[in-house]
Amino acid sequence: MASLRIREAKEGDCADILRLVRELAEYEKLSDQVTISEEGPCVVGYGLYYFVYSTWKGRSIYLEDIYVTPEYRGQGIGSKIITKVAEVALDKGCSQFRLAVLDWNKRAMDLYKALGAQDLTEAEGWHSFCFEGEAMREMAGR
Amino acid sequence: MASLRIREAKEGDCADILRLVRELAEYEKLSDQVTISEEGPCVVGYGLYYFVYSTWKGRSIYLEDIYVTPEYRGQGIGSKIITKVAEVALDKGCSQFRLAVLDWNKRAMDLYKALGAQDLTEAEGWHSFCFEGEAMREMAGR
Repeated sequence: MASLRIREAKEGDCADILRLVRELAEYEKLSDQVTISEEGPCVVGYGLYYFVYSTWKGRSIYLEDIYVTPEYRGQGIGSKIITKVAEVALDKGCSQFRLAVLDWNKRAMDLYKALGAQDLTEAEGWHSFCFEGEAMREMAGR
Repeated sequence: MASLRIREAKEGDCADILRLVRELAEYEKLSDQVTISEEGPCVVGYGLYYFVYSTWKGRSIYLEDIYVTPEYRGQGIGSKIITKVAEVALDKGCSQFRLAVLDWNKRAMDLYKALGAQDLTEAEGWHSFCFEGEAMREMAGR
């Protein structure tokens, strides 16, 4: 495969990253949920593939998205990105590395399991809940 | 009910919080997973109930745990804590408020749904995956 370099994103990568975000949303059948806010996410990536992460100090790192464009799949790039996140997590002193995956995305699930991840929804029954802005504003009376 | 004040935790609350963490773990049948690290979580709470939260800048707030001791249940305290988190989230500019719940904890699920949350696992099929320290170290070759 082409040589692989994983690096932090720069401002100049924004257009490429946005293109990948849109491609991923399409793949996940969630295109209608793509909105761009002024405060960008924390991104580490390179050109044709990327990931986004955030930390919870001292405990968990959350991998928000990982995406490899179709023409680069099957070359172990996903595994290398996951490994890089694990290195970053260990460097930051995190004791857990969490991510979410859609249940029909068997390819991703199989990869994460092969790399040592546990499916907490399957194993323990964890469900992910979300309040969107409108629900939050309603609760807060704003 | 007794008067309710929701405030940020202080260092002097650590012993109470730890007790609640242990009680919650017992309730969740996860007592074997309680470990105490030097870097404490970010906690907001008061006396007999508490929650722990962390933010992802500009986008999501994660509610790690919410727990009300048995003798204080059924008084709307959980709803008030959730509402407080929503207020904090809005103040911080978050557009989402996420939390996880075990599938047998119907009481909690019903409360979150009644308050406007969506069960993303049920609605879209999201599964929560986790790499623990050993899996991360194995990937990173450390």
